[in-house]
Amino acid sequence: MNKKEFPLTPMELENVIKKFPTPFHIYEERKIRQNMRRLQKAFAWAPLFREYFAVKALPTPHILQIIKAEGGGADCSSLPELILAEQAGICADKIMFSSNDTPYQEYQKAFSLQANINLDDISHIAYLEKYAGLPELICFRYNPGPSIKGNAFIGEPAEAKYGLTRDQMFEAYRIMRDKGVKRFGVHAMVLSNSLQVNTFVEIAEMVFSLAAELHTKLHIPIEFINLGGGIGIPYRPEEVEFDVEALGRQLQERYQSILASVGLTKTAIYLESGRFISGPAGYLVSTVLHKKETYKNYVGLDASMADLMRPGMYKAYHHITISGKEAVKPSYLCDVTGSLCENNDKFAIDRLLPPVDIGDRLIIYDTGAHGRSMGFNYNGKLRCAELLLREDGTVVQIRRAETIDDYFATLRGFSGSLL
Amino acid sequence: MNKKEFPLTPMELENVIKKFPTPFHIYEERKIRQNMRRLQKAFAWAPLFREYFAVKALPTPHILQIIKAEGGGADCSSLPELILAEQAGICADKIMFSSNDTPYQEYQKAFSLQANINLDDISHIAYLEKYAGLPELICFRYNPGPSIKGNAFIGEPAEAKYGLTRDQMFEAYRIMRDKGVKRFGVHAMVLSNSLQVNTFVEIAEMVFSLAAELHTKLHIPIEFINLGGGIGIPYRPEEVEFDVEALGRQLQERYQSILASVGLTKTAIYLESGRFISGPAGYLVSTVLHKKETYKNYVGLDASMADLMRPGMYKAYHHITISGKEAVKPSYLCDVTGSLCENNDKFAIDRLLPPVDIGDRLIIYDTGAHGRSMGFNYNGKLRCAELLLREDGTVVQIRRAETIDDYFATLRGFSGSLL
Repeated sequence: MNKKEFPLTPMELENVIKKFPTPFHIYEERKIRQNMRRLQKAFAWAPLFREYFAVKALPTPHILQIIKAEGGGADCSSLPELILAEQAGICADKIMFSSNDTPYQEYQKAFSLQANINLDDISHIAYLEKYAGLPELICFRYNPGPSIKGNAFIGEPAEAKYGLTRDQMFEAYRIMRDKGVKRFGVHAMVLSNSLQVNTFVEIAEMVFSLAAELHTKLHIPIEFINLGGGIGIPYRPEEVEFDVEALGRQLQERYQSILASVGLTKTAIYLESGRFISGPAGYLVSTVLHKKETYKNYVGLDASMADLMRPGMYKAYHHITISGKEAVKPSYLCDVTGSLCENNDKFAIDRLLPPVDIGDRLIIYDTGAHGRSMGFNYNGKLRCAELLLREDGTVVQIRRAETIDDYFATLRGFSGSLL
Repeated sequence: MNKKEFPLTPMELENVIKKFPTPFHIYEERKIRQNMRRLQKAFAWAPLFREYFAVKALPTPHILQIIKAEGGGADCSSLPELILAEQAGICADKIMFSSNDTPYQEYQKAFSLQANINLDDISHIAYLEKYAGLPELICFRYNPGPSIKGNAFIGEPAEAKYGLTRDQMFEAYRIMRDKGVKRFGVHAMVLSNSLQVNTFVEIAEMVFSLAAELHTKLHIPIEFINLGGGIGIPYRPEEVEFDVEALGRQLQERYQSILASVGLTKTAIYLESGRFISGPAGYLVSTVLHKKETYKNYVGLDASMADLMRPGMYKAYHHITISGKEAVKPSYLCDVTGSLCENNDKFAIDRLLPPVDIGDRLIIYDTGAHGRSMGFNYNGKLRCAELLLREDGTVVQIRRAETIDDYFATLRGFSGSLL
């Protein structure tokens, strides 16, 4: 049983709410640091290990500063994400810039930051060279295509827009080598939110083998292998945590047998975890505005899909408790809804909660990754604030809630009378 | 065959792009007006007919001003939407405010604008009275529940968070009548994006019957029946348009047989169409940045899911043509992608297009409803601008594109060093 526990007592929470009205996401600094350290410890055997936090999971400078303090880098794939990393003091090889249908302005920025540039397609060699120049170090993203049989966690790699085929990988590195580039990395990411260590290892094996072959056939050094993200988290209490330590041990074996055996003994291992690091460290706190009993029971919150899209978009499970009713037996079957005028604006469907009262504070768990960052303004909904629970127990605001002024920002100057 | 045609010639488009770089949505004023008139003509038989444009479909003041000029109103369900309507000069009974887990501030605003307030639940009577007061006119939203068998267009009404049960409807109107309210409307919306006239008519019949029964049993006048939205549009060229004229004729018959027969001869008919009015009037114009050929062919655009979510979120079809290649035979099978670091950021999967070149202008059709309005900033993507093609052929900008400054707005003051 994976224990779900909110880090503030009901009284502490009410004190926070006096200053910061609901809804808000609150992130636990301690947990983020713990997850960073756990990952690093599991890969301590590698000549160099680095976690590049997937910025899109939680694109907030304070969070990136915590990642940086723990020795992590930033995985970016847009101009605003590059700027966020820069603002947090993360630069040079602590940034992985993964391209995909990338406009040249983003390559120029990544180049000027001396980020590790990861190209998504062979055609981007010429594009990068034309608009930014050739960097010292280059990386390409591998897509194993139909050689991997798709499953629920992987999707079908052959249907994924990302990466190069195996043949293209050899061609791309050869071209770059012949252009004089001397430093190389290899990137692949074919998992998403998986709890299966074995699946991860199988794919990593394939990437290690490709790297070894690139090294031996093209006589190029492979400075790092970036296995991307994809380590899942147990959203449901009954789910079992991903065994990061086992992943580390098994990858160490494969490293020895596949990489070290061809002389790649100094190749660094990189990961780009987002969810694993910050997901379980986030909580969406929301207040019950309404209760409604029609064909079903509905508990209406002051938060909406704008603050957390995963349940509405993917029917994803997020655990929910009521502050102060942790010990009360769940007996009230209900849907937990937001106020967006869209029927899938539901945080939970047919969920058993303790008896719910208007004014109750609901805690929605595991919102620290792909939570607020996926929010939209559909139906005029405004995205909520973000708070940080620091290690010393103090709470600071790290992002304000959107205001109506923000909503109208792109209309100012264009909203005058037309007719 | 439903003809898809972009209203600007390639040369006109290039002239627009000189001033407004891609991507952008462009809306055709003429078509919006035509659709408004077509709907009004189909319902000209009603003692009063009014289209309340669903603001969430295209929440832009210039568009609302066109709706207003055509005699339409605004269907709002949030504070920003109420303010948008107000800014466009739409107020009082030209606003329908449909609640759903509504915070009191929104009721207060709707009340002060003298909007028609549509309550979603019987518990909201006390809430509205407490926080805003009792309005002159009240409306309740009906949910037919399991009495309607769900289908692809309706979903399962018993699983919908909206509306009151039949018994609650009678109780709610009785309570309001006894509190002295004298003016009443009835609301229901159980369709979404349907092309089936018959389905619409069947449900309208049920709502008419309920209104007649409320009238005869409670001796209350029914000033209007609001059938909500749900009229679909043919996204695919081979789909047949919704026959609005047939809907009008068939509802006229039901009006006579169900409503007029119990003395409801002056009841107005309201609709809340969004998609039908503005959907086909919108086009997302985007430029091809990259072509990629791996396991499949990919055409990469400068637009992304941030500008149009429907294909990525619902696998929805949007027609695509290439400006200047309208007459070229489609022979290039490809996925059309955006640059968001999310594999479902695809505007089309396995689409046959004319041979595509980098720099081509792709026209994505039917983006005038639930297009930009559903966009998010995930992965640091910024939402594009909106233009209006006026009836005189001139093009004006009605919303600017988001900037990096907008993206950082909620961080200003909170992005300083924490550690």
